[in-house]
Amino acid sequence: MSQAIYEFPLNEKVRTYLRLEQLFKQLVNANSATENWQFIHFFSSLFTLLDLLERLDLRNDVLKDIELHEKNLVIWSQHPNIDTEALQQSLQKILRLRESLKGTKKIGADLKEERFLASIRQRFSIPGGTCSFDLPNLHYWLQQANADKIRQVQTWMQELSAIKEAIEITLSFLRERGRFVQYEAEKGFYQGIAEDKNELIRVFSSTDQGYYPMLSGNKYRYAIRFTMFTPSMQGNSSVDAVVPFKLACC
Amino acid sequence: MSQAIYEFPLNEKVRTYLRLEQLFKQLVNANSATENWQFIHFFSSLFTLLDLLERLDLRNDVLKDIELHEKNLVIWSQHPNIDTEALQQSLQKILRLRESLKGTKKIGADLKEERFLASIRQRFSIPGGTCSFDLPNLHYWLQQANADKIRQVQTWMQELSAIKEAIEITLSFLRERGRFVQYEAEKGFYQGIAEDKNELIRVFSSTDQGYYPMLSGNKYRYAIRFTMFTPSMQGNSSVDAVVPFKLACC
Repeated sequence: MSQAIYEFPLNEKVRTYLRLEQLFKQLVNANSATENWQFIHFFSSLFTLLDLLERLDLRNDVLKDIELHEKNLVIWSQHPNIDTEALQQSLQKILRLRESLKGTKKIGADLKEERFLASIRQRFSIPGGTCSFDLPNLHYWLQQANADKIRQVQTWMQELSAIKEAIEITLSFLRERGRFVQYEAEKGFYQGIAEDKNELIRVFSSTDQGYYPMLSGNKYRYAIRFTMFTPSMQGNSSVDAVVPFKLACC
Repeated sequence: MSQAIYEFPLNEKVRTYLRLEQLFKQLVNANSATENWQFIHFFSSLFTLLDLLERLDLRNDVLKDIELHEKNLVIWSQHPNIDTEALQQSLQKILRLRESLKGTKKIGADLKEERFLASIRQRFSIPGGTCSFDLPNLHYWLQQANADKIRQVQTWMQELSAIKEAIEITLSFLRERGRFVQYEAEKGFYQGIAEDKNELIRVFSSTDQGYYPMLSGNKYRYAIRFTMFTPSMQGNSSVDAVVPFKLACC
């Protein structure tokens, strides 16, 4: 039986973090890019990420989270059974990240001002707007040696490494907060009450039974409804059976 | 010396054809996709393509072009040195395409109405809007066996195969119309007069000398200006030297 995890944020901050995490995962693929279209996808994801970063000032949220991790690590260090060395490493990493985030201007500001990126960015919002007549300079850049292009990509990514790492750490701490527990959804429906500080609901369910979960809710309560995947035009989408699934409230 | 071809359309129709050609090239990559993000890129390119197709009613333009090819092939068939068999094959292909394009509703209309595609399309315009909480049904679809996903992708692409082939044929006829001739651009500047029916200017120039061509113009005249590629913030972008290049007016 194949299964997958579906994640549902209960607030706007975690929603943004998850979006950024997904974009960062796409950007990492450029490290092994060999084809022009792979670099074009890299730029496309990068500009989407910069759009998101510019729209919100994430730095305060991220710094607050990082400082919370620091406090938690200090509390854990007083626990007798703790691996002190691993904990020290985590603490150092977090302190380094905090300094690095505090030191930057607005996140992504340097990339926004980078001349080449700025010169091609606007055209990426035009459907199919990356042809050689739209962006001859991009076309020129794409003809450079692959190693040079990858090096350049990595330099750009370096500018975002602090925020990338901070989001990774925050989401990994958040996911650690909840443990999966088995539940059943009668007629595909389950209602839950979010506990204090729950920010993320994770649903672990089958991907070969024809249904997938949808969640609506807020920081107080939420409802999970399993819906039939119906690619064709006909068909009822409600689930009649009892759906077993696992739930983690983080 | 590494070189590349830069293409510049002189009218809106060829501009659109080139954009569609580039999008179709990106879509073809999905045939060998194995990773989720590759399928996400496929959907993203597909929706961009549908946006373009819906905005313009291309069918009349494309049909007119196809009928012109047909006439040309008939004229060529009277040439004594022609390979009759190859010509017959081309003619048959074109007749088949014409029928197929005439038979369709608006191009891409079936894909627009396809339930799954319609249900995920809107979220693709949100930056990073393809997370599992945005589109749990896409997340479910991505968990299916790779062969099933590829088969589905090919079914969707089948709907666009006539327009894809028609654009490929039209652009290949168009590119055949011009032969590359050597020119020199003094101080990186060259001015040309477009001849009757020229629709596409192709520039073949170095990609390791630091400059790239830009073209401005219309169906009467055009100017090519070679510009320095300056990734850093400083530097003069004009070219002082004589730039050798090849030019094909199609």
